[in-house]
Amino acid sequence: MLPTILDLSSLRAAYRSGLTPLDIVEEVIARRAASKDPAIFITPVPDDELRSAAKALMARAPEANSLPLWGVPFAVKDNIDAAGLPTTAACPAYEYRPDVDSTVVARLKAAGAIVIGKTNLDQFATGLNGTRSPYGAPRSVFDKAYISGGSSSGSAVTVASGLAAFSLGTDTAGSGRVPAALNNLVGIKPTPGLLPNTGAIPACRSVDCITIFAPTVGDGIAIRRVAEGFDAADPFSRRAKPATLPVSGLRIGVLTGVEREFFGDKEVEALYDQAIERARALGATIVAFDYAPFREAAALLYDGPWVAERLAAVEDFLATNAADFDPTVRGIIEGARGKSAVNAFNGRYRLEELRRKTEAEWEKADVLLLPTAPTTYTVADMLADPVVLNGRLGRYTNFVNLLDCAAIAVPAGFGNGNLPGGVTVIAPAFTDDALAPLADALHRTAASGMGIDREAAIPEASRVVAVDDGFVEIVVVGAHLTGMPLNHELTGAGARLVKTCSTSGEYRLFVLPDTVPPKPGLIREPGFQGAGLEVEVWALPADAFGRFVQKIPAPLGIGKVALDDGTSVSGFLCEAHAVKGAEDITSLGGWRSYISTRLAS
Amino acid sequence: MLPTILDLSSLRAAYRSGLTPLDIVEEVIARRAASKDPAIFITPVPDDELRSAAKALMARAPEANSLPLWGVPFAVKDNIDAAGLPTTAACPAYEYRPDVDSTVVARLKAAGAIVIGKTNLDQFATGLNGTRSPYGAPRSVFDKAYISGGSSSGSAVTVASGLAAFSLGTDTAGSGRVPAALNNLVGIKPTPGLLPNTGAIPACRSVDCITIFAPTVGDGIAIRRVAEGFDAADPFSRRAKPATLPVSGLRIGVLTGVEREFFGDKEVEALYDQAIERARALGATIVAFDYAPFREAAALLYDGPWVAERLAAVEDFLATNAADFDPTVRGIIEGARGKSAVNAFNGRYRLEELRRKTEAEWEKADVLLLPTAPTTYTVADMLADPVVLNGRLGRYTNFVNLLDCAAIAVPAGFGNGNLPGGVTVIAPAFTDDALAPLADALHRTAASGMGIDREAAIPEASRVVAVDDGFVEIVVVGAHLTGMPLNHELTGAGARLVKTCSTSGEYRLFVLPDTVPPKPGLIREPGFQGAGLEVEVWALPADAFGRFVQKIPAPLGIGKVALDDGTSVSGFLCEAHAVKGAEDITSLGGWRSYISTRLAS
Repeated sequence: MLPTILDLSSLRAAYRSGLTPLDIVEEVIARRAASKDPAIFITPVPDDELRSAAKALMARAPEANSLPLWGVPFAVKDNIDAAGLPTTAACPAYEYRPDVDSTVVARLKAAGAIVIGKTNLDQFATGLNGTRSPYGAPRSVFDKAYISGGSSSGSAVTVASGLAAFSLGTDTAGSGRVPAALNNLVGIKPTPGLLPNTGAIPACRSVDCITIFAPTVGDGIAIRRVAEGFDAADPFSRRAKPATLPVSGLRIGVLTGVEREFFGDKEVEALYDQAIERARALGATIVAFDYAPFREAAALLYDGPWVAERLAAVEDFLATNAADFDPTVRGIIEGARGKSAVNAFNGRYRLEELRRKTEAEWEKADVLLLPTAPTTYTVADMLADPVVLNGRLGRYTNFVNLLDCAAIAVPAGFGNGNLPGGVTVIAPAFTDDALAPLADALHRTAASGMGIDREAAIPEASRVVAVDDGFVEIVVVGAHLTGMPLNHELTGAGARLVKTCSTSGEYRLFVLPDTVPPKPGLIREPGFQGAGLEVEVWALPADAFGRFVQKIPAPLGIGKVALDDGTSVSGFLCEAHAVKGAEDITSLGGWRSYISTRLAS
Repeated sequence: MLPTILDLSSLRAAYRSGLTPLDIVEEVIARRAASKDPAIFITPVPDDELRSAAKALMARAPEANSLPLWGVPFAVKDNIDAAGLPTTAACPAYEYRPDVDSTVVARLKAAGAIVIGKTNLDQFATGLNGTRSPYGAPRSVFDKAYISGGSSSGSAVTVASGLAAFSLGTDTAGSGRVPAALNNLVGIKPTPGLLPNTGAIPACRSVDCITIFAPTVGDGIAIRRVAEGFDAADPFSRRAKPATLPVSGLRIGVLTGVEREFFGDKEVEALYDQAIERARALGATIVAFDYAPFREAAALLYDGPWVAERLAAVEDFLATNAADFDPTVRGIIEGARGKSAVNAFNGRYRLEELRRKTEAEWEKADVLLLPTAPTTYTVADMLADPVVLNGRLGRYTNFVNLLDCAAIAVPAGFGNGNLPGGVTVIAPAFTDDALAPLADALHRTAASGMGIDREAAIPEASRVVAVDDGFVEIVVVGAHLTGMPLNHELTGAGARLVKTCSTSGEYRLFVLPDTVPPKPGLIREPGFQGAGLEVEVWALPADAFGRFVQKIPAPLGIGKVALDDGTSVSGFLCEAHAVKGAEDITSLGGWRSYISTRLAS
């Protein structure tokens, strides 16, 4: 019995219990047929082709769950190529049939995932609302009067309504995040360049990102890891340099004062405030920051020269097919015609000035916690005022790619009107993994389920735990203790004190002869039952640890020291020959008491 | 007695021996008066102001050499602000009088340096030849028929003719390097953003660099360190992330085949080939690489949209003062008028494609060694064909800033016609320090003196020694040896084998009981006279070394191992308790023989 939402844990459990990919695609076929939203797909994969794909997978990798995404059904936004299926960008006259997969689709298929269809979008990914398509407007899974959000409209709705386990979107201004918020989903918006864009139609090529809609943060991250990685064919592809965030004491920046703009939507505002309180309860430090420079950068994306990238992407087609465009999309793209190269460089200069201003804000906060979309609209309202209302949706998303950030949009609960709200956590480039534990915890504590299933429990198996923050722990015994002569070697290398504790009882401490400053030698003697010796545990960056170790003179070195809590941590040891005949100070309990004794005498 | 060329070592020695800054400025005043080139300065600092500056320094810092650049006279290109002196950019109608110093001038003054004047340039730094100025064309210090190179024409000539110890230039296309080559000087072209541009008139703001002309690489680096550093007021200022280059086994990429273009100048070609041979003799590995993608990127600087940055910089002034421009400069800048924002983004896309192609070339070579300028011209020839001949000068320099590289131009000797040639070493961003030892060695082995003094010995005190390349050496004894089961932990972390050698005779080797894979324990026993044990020395990045050390399980650890050559290197040691009763295999000479013995039995 499959749940409504096809998260990875449920799928894997189903496969473990004997279901096959063919069973799953039959379920997808049935659900797709029962779907009441006719605007989700531009090209659904035909039923028989889905069955063939499942059989092909079972032939290629017969063992259940033997590939990372074995038998996982997914949908692809129709501006990303999937071999054999037409790509339209929601413009029928633009249609072409690619022979090869986009890089991300190829990687996902190789990992066992099965494409179920190409999904609707705001034409040429120009929009955040989902109504700008001749294939119809997909609707919020919670109220068909309301927009789905866009431009990745169909991709969000497929996952939120249980037709696919995940889907691919694209995101220039917020197209991978706004629809997540409006459909109670997670939207993984990777650092620009982390997922290659080879085989995707550009919107603003210098800032476009392929994104992932998923029921949980853990699912989204697992899928991102399959899809990501350098691709020489994409000039904007980058090699990841993972950045870390503090595992404890995280400072989260939130909106204050006049920058809190929800366009009158008290429900989303309340959900935002609740998310802040949940972040605080999770142990984060909530700090105020100035959103103004981020807001000004956001405005550049449509008001500045970047809209010329949209024109650059379709210029030849527009010259011959202007009448085939959605009128709103065409109006936006043609707005770039008057812009000069001088305008383009002046826009770049303005962005760099704003980037400088935002750097000062990043000194205050490790992560920003923002509303994903400040409000939502009915399809009717959106069609009546398509540019202004669309612009409002991007208030908190437009800056993210221009300023080279990673972001994860997560559900934040439901308002009284039974529409969901979302929040997004944002941090500088390559914090994609580092952001995940916070995003996951915010989703779990929102207790708002996954997609259309508001009661769904978020599977424990998808929980994201805090990652290595790049620090290495070291036990220090003597001259590196707090207040001792070599402690500066630790503090100067960015180390932080973790705790003061004791070794296990198996250690003896000796005074090394002829060392300046005086140093002890710690020697393990299995079977010896001492009282343990006072030590300190420090954490320092791996490279600083490497240099630190290299500087240690003989007869000292770094091995593993057993602590009284049963753990074993890198720490100072001494070659045995050096303590022959040396003074045994084990009974003093540690180097600090020896030094005070000596000073007193 | 001061030498012709005022290098830092000579100045410091003079100050140590009792000369004062007042003496030095009197010497500068006398030399300036005796100078035969009337086009060097746009605004020389008046004699009395120079004397006042020297006295003010002596009042502020009375002790000789008590500041990094105590009493060091320098010149400033006239597109960089120095408080109280007019800035013209070689356009008299553009003149303004700044009240504050540019950031770099302020830092240099604070370090004790004394401004002697504002120097001539190709107007608005648009040119590589030095003839595009209403203030006249400075000449090569070796032949007044020949161009000085530009755009930093006057700055190069001041240093090359002994009027200043160093000077500031700017460099967009090569303006800080070409004039160095034509005047037998060093040109330090920092990574873009390393020296802030606050208070400098932009040429192409996204790629402009302030540069340093100096008699030696060591001087240039010392001066750069004073001037560099983040400045929040410049949106393109960057925080340095020093990058390393291999200290040994450096691979140097050189031109081959059709990419060797000297426009018929056999002398510069011969000097280039000699520089390659000197690099080889210094121990580098000379490799071929494909210059084509670099050449194509170079062409973008003037043929692509970047020229619109020059228009953006002076657009308002041009609107009212078109007649005040040098006609060639005006023609170039007005060439940007027809360029659209779409052109600008398409240019950016092309650059990113070319950057990708150059990355493949950087896989082959650590450093590129290129001619600085492929040839030179007389002033008469240059004025007769000002755009085409100027373009040739930038063939090997134009790409460097667009592709975010550091470069150091150094003298390469003299041709038969008694004109100098130069070569430039180039590597990716933030190799500014790492490039210096090679650049310095190439200059010293060229034996062509400094500036106009072809016989000058390059002071030993300015020698640049190889810096730490970020690798840490480790002695491995057992399972991490080449071919052994854990060797992949080293190779996977980017380690490289340095050598196979022996420990000193004081070590014993034991077989640790119950380890998987089997591992030895190395124990030092002072006084023991064994034959030494075979070990390998590997070098790995400091952070990888840190993580490697952290993973080592007890009873092993990392201490210092004494080798048979008398050195002491980080390496595997073992806690003594773990070898009690263990098999002593010292007589086998190493772990490798033990394993083969065991496999054979």
